[in-house]
Parts: sequence; C-alpha cells; structure tokens
Amino acid sequence: MNAMPEKTIWADDGRVSIIDQTRLPGDFHKMEVKTVGEMWEAIKSLRVRGAPAIGIAAAFGVWIAVKHLRAEDSLPLDQAIENACSYLATARPTAVNLFWALDRVRKLAKANTDLPHNKLQRLVLAEAEAMLAEDYEICTAIGRHGAGLLEDGHRILTHCNAGGLATAGYGTALAPVYYAVEKLGKHLEVFADETRPLLQGARLTSWELVRASIPVTLICDNMAAVVLRNGWVNAVIVGTDRVARNGDFANKIGTYGLAVLAREHNVPLYVAAPLSSIDISLSSGAEIPIEERNADEITSLHGLKIAPEGVKVFNPAFDVTPHRLVTAFITEKGIVRPSYEKNLTALFD
Amino acid sequence: MNAMPEKTIWADDGRVSIIDQTRLPGDFHKMEVKTVGEMWEAIKSLRVRGAPAIGIAAAFGVWIAVKHLRAEDSLPLDQAIENACSYLATARPTAVNLFWALDRVRKLAKANTDLPHNKLQRLVLAEAEAMLAEDYEICTAIGRHGAGLLEDGHRILTHCNAGGLATAGYGTALAPVYYAVEKLGKHLEVFADETRPLLQGARLTSWELVRASIPVTLICDNMAAVVLRNGWVNAVIVGTDRVARNGDFANKIGTYGLAVLAREHNVPLYVAAPLSSIDISLSSGAEIPIEERNADEITSLHGLKIAPEGVKVFNPAFDVTPHRLVTAFITEKGIVRPSYEKNLTALFD
Repeated sequence: MNAMPEKTIWADDGRVSIIDQTRLPGDFHKMEVKTVGEMWEAIKSLRVRGAPAIGIAAAFGVWIAVKHLRAEDSLPLDQAIENACSYLATARPTAVNLFWALDRVRKLAKANTDLPHNKLQRLVLAEAEAMLAEDYEICTAIGRHGAGLLEDGHRILTHCNAGGLATAGYGTALAPVYYAVEKLGKHLEVFADETRPLLQGARLTSWELVRASIPVTLICDNMAAVVLRNGWVNAVIVGTDRVARNGDFANKIGTYGLAVLAREHNVPLYVAAPLSSIDISLSSGAEIPIEERNADEITSLHGLKIAPEGVKVFNPAFDVTPHRLVTAFITEKGIVRPSYEKNLTALFD
Repeated sequence: MNAMPEKTIWADDGRVSIIDQTRLPGDFHKMEVKTVGEMWEAIKSLRVRGAPAIGIAAAFGVWIAVKHLRAEDSLPLDQAIENACSYLATARPTAVNLFWALDRVRKLAKANTDLPHNKLQRLVLAEAEAMLAEDYEICTAIGRHGAGLLEDGHRILTHCNAGGLATAGYGTALAPVYYAVEKLGKHLEVFADETRPLLQGARLTSWELVRASIPVTLICDNMAAVVLRNGWVNAVIVGTDRVARNGDFANKIGTYGLAVLAREHNVPLYVAAPLSSIDISLSSGAEIPIEERNADEITSLHGLKIAPEGVKVFNPAFDVTPHRLVTAFITEKGIVRPSYEKNLTALFD
C-alpha cells in the first residue's frame, strides 16, 4: 500500500508539467505547460487547483514567462518578472497562496536585479523548486500533527479535494489520513462529499483514495447531514484557501454549511492550513474576496444541459466559515486551538 | 402570465399519458403508459414522481392492468385488482401516497365485487380520475393557505420539486408561490436547490418556474447555507413524502440538513403536506422506510462517469427531519402548528 499520491506539478529538464485535473477520473493525462498564458489558463480553468498547488504552479509560471529572455531583449528581466507576477495573480482571487508565492518570486527578483540574466532565471526556477520541496515537507508535517487527532477505526468526512492533487505531497486535509494509514498503520475510512458543481470530491478525492487503497464512500453534499446524524463520522477535516487572523476561513463552497452541521452533531471540525494559507493581514473573513464562477458550471455538465434556459444562477466558488465553528487548525507547526487571533499570529513570530 | 404548470398525468379517450420527467428540461416528451409494467417502471425510474403524482399514477396503473379483462378470463377481476395493487406498491417505498391511493382502489374493489366487469372497471377509472381532480383542488387549497404566509417581495428557498410536476395541480411546496403570484398578484422570487443526485430542482423546479415567469435562481445544494446567511430567504418551503403523527417528516435527501440550516439562520421552515401524505399510523419518523437507490445515480450522469471505479457509495433517496425543526405544516385544511401530535391527528377527526 502506498498512500502517497501522484505528483501534481513537476519540472523536468527545463519543462514544466501538470496533471490535467479536469480530465480525472476518466483520463489520467499529464500535460506540459509551455507559456505563461497556458499556466494562467491552467489555473483559471482548474487544470491545476488546490491552494498550495496553484501557488507553486504560479511560481513555475513566472519562470516559464522569463526563461527565454536574453539580455538584449528590450524588456528588463525584473520588469518581465513583475509583469508575469501581476498577470498570474489575476487567475483566481480567493486562495492567498497564489499571492504569497508570487510575492516570494517578486522579492527574490527585486533583491537580485544586479545578477546576470541567466543567473536570475536560474534563481526563479530554484525558488519554484524550493516551494515544491517545502510544500512536500509541510504536507508531511501537517499529516504528522493531524494524525495525532485520529484514532484507529475513525471515519473522516471531507469536502472538495485537499489531498495530494491539491499540493506537492500528502495534501492538507487528507495528509493526516495518509500519514496515519501509511506511517502509523491505523485503519481509517473516509466519506467524500462529491462537491458540486465541479465534483472535486467525486473526481479527485475518491480517485486519490481508491488508488491509495483507503476505503472511501462517496456521497452527495446534501447527504452529509444524515451521515453525521447517523454517528458515522468522528471528524470533519477540510482544507482552506485563506485563513484570516481571527480564524475565519474561506474554503470550497459548502464548507460553511458542513461546519454548521458538524457542530449540530457534536463532530469536531479541523481545518488543515499551511502557514502559506494564513493571511495575517486580514482581521476577519469578511475581508476575503470570494470568486464567483460561470453559471454554466451549474447548468451544464461536460456540455450536457441540466437546467432550462432562462434560469438565473448564483455560483460562488467559496464560502467563509466563522472561527467559532472551528475545533482546531492543523498547521505544519502543530495544532492551533482558540484563541485564534493570538495563536495564529504567534505562528509568524 | 400563467403560473399553472403542465398536466403531469392524464387520461384521454381510454389512454393514460404522462410527461416523461427524466427527459426534462431538454426534452418535453409526453408518453402513453400502456401496461401496468410500464407504469411500475415509470414510477420506479422517476418518469412520474412526486408523492401525490405517484399515488394518482398508481391508481391509473391499476386501471390499465384490468381494463381489458373480460368476465370469461380465469382471473377474477377483484383478484386482478389486488394483484395490480400489490405489484405497484413495490415500485417505491417511502411516499405513503402510493399506498394510500392503492388502498382506495383496493377498498373500492372489495366493496363492489358483485358488480359486472365493465362497471367495476369503470369505477376504478373513475376513482383514479377523482383522485386527479381532488389533487387539483387540494393543491389550490394548500396554495391558498400557504400564500397567507408570504408577503410581497418575499424570497422562498425550496428543495427538490414539489411543484406542478409532482401533482395534478399547483404542486405542494410551490402551490403557495403560484397562488400568491397568480391569484394575489404578489411578487415573489424562488431559490431552487439543484437537488443531487437526480437534479429535480435544476431540471424540474427551474423549468416550471421559468415557464411561469416567476424569477428563479438555481443553486447547488451546498450553497443554501450561504444564501440563508446572506438574509436572502424569507421562508423555506418543501414538500413531503410521508409525515408521521408526531410531525417528523420524510422528504428528498438534503431536506434535513436544510432544515438545520434554516433554524440556524432563523428562517421558518414550512412543509406543504396534503392529508394523503400524513401517515397517522406512525408514531415517529423512525418508522418511515427510506429508499436507497443505485450507486450509479451518483457516480454517473447521463452515462458519463464522474467518479472512479472502486469507490463505495451511500445513496439514500430521502431523509427524515425531526418535527422540532418544522415551523408549520401547510395542508389543504389549513396551517398546522405544534403540538403536531395533537393537531395532525385532529385533521382526521
């Protein structure tokens, strides 16, 4: 049994590739990303998705944008890096990891404007590679800390995909599961919300867990209430796209309702959050921008119309869950419990 | 503007027809139901669905089963009626209207065993026609009583389809909306949960309301929590497949979670319930049998696989909501408020 999922993004001999996650589970397709425009599109259309993974993807995107620039080109390299960062930042608004990763690249460029082109280009690539390697370690650390919350025989309910496909390693929400199963030999089972409209739970989480031989039961999002009431779930674990300083957090649409239901049934809610997803500059979740996506994500499925012409649609990609519903955050530095304002801030000291 | 939806089931010149609701919204297809086996299949596979409508459909199914029997046939007519009733009762287990309607036909046959074949056959048809006409009146009465709960400008959230397509008239949950708009000139808007897995909200409720020119906004089930929190909903109104004596009620999967969320946000939950859906013989919702349906309803959509091989599935078609979460029932005899045990029982005095 190997719970470690596939690589989501990788660079090999100067070429950056991703798994095209829009084609899973039917088609396990690896694609090379050749231009910064292709990377923008891959992030926008969720070929690569998950807060940590899109940060890393964006960093590689900057490198793709500038790797062929020469000293004699009219655009200075640092300006080209800045342009690529600004452009890639427009791909999606909610996950802070995207901006966090681009800021790292930006700072690196600013600190090294005097370097020759080829050296700065190599530094950008090295920074993206470093993020990839760090994310792998962060996922493992989240797994190690989170696994301590899970007992043999526990059943975990998760929403969307915050697994290996969303990161460079074990994932965030699924990391405690993978770690507990692979490293500690615990037996765990997972309930996966299918996660409408884009079905990341059905298509991605189920796919990962089946490949890892971890028992997984797929449910529609509206079945979670009954699964919780039946006493079938010991813990709800989700990922996050952005955590505010007070512990309010954004995650895939449906998370807030699930959090209310978990509380109603006295089931703990854990939020797996690498420090890169904690935006200490925001005082509360009200400040997190929420992406609204196209109506056709709800009215069509793979080109098949499932709703009539003329219907209006509300399609927020994320929602914000208030901190009072969070039992604890699982970070790479350990478990964080209330008071969140104090304890999340302390992580950055 | 005509808020009155299409006929769902009708008999015309000895032929029974239905709208094949599995083909909506793309294809508005009317089909004749020629045999009792076809009626069983139409109910089982949700070509005709909605608690009131499947009761009526079953009554017509009995007539289809026996309408060509002659006195010289070896099977006595009352036995053939009993056989058809027993058979049709196996199509679906949760909605009590199915059993209620078949019991009406059964009692009619038992009380008239001495009639000539053709007269009893005509009585069975007349009974099915009577149910159709009664249901039309019941829907209008539910609409009239329920409309009193709604003010001009109100926004209503509903789950699944308990509209005209689920009945012979205005519907149950949507009846107050149609009545308030059509008869009282109120302006109302509806939020429709898409209602996974079979998307009755997207395919049917949206379709009905668009045709009736009533503004409708389609959301995924997991977005209801945010819509409620945003203060966009004045009332949640749902139908029901069976109400126990104490007010616990079964309805489409997802209703229980929605009821918890409505309570969390101080939004009233109204349950539109014709008396035929109230099963006074059951002391609580724990006694209501819950249909589980095939896994492929969740793992596929119109033949397209959306989940990997090897995933387990939990697919209950209904859930039970405890009476403590119900603000009131809307019946054809008026609004019923707690205590439900007393006040629901009194409806049958």
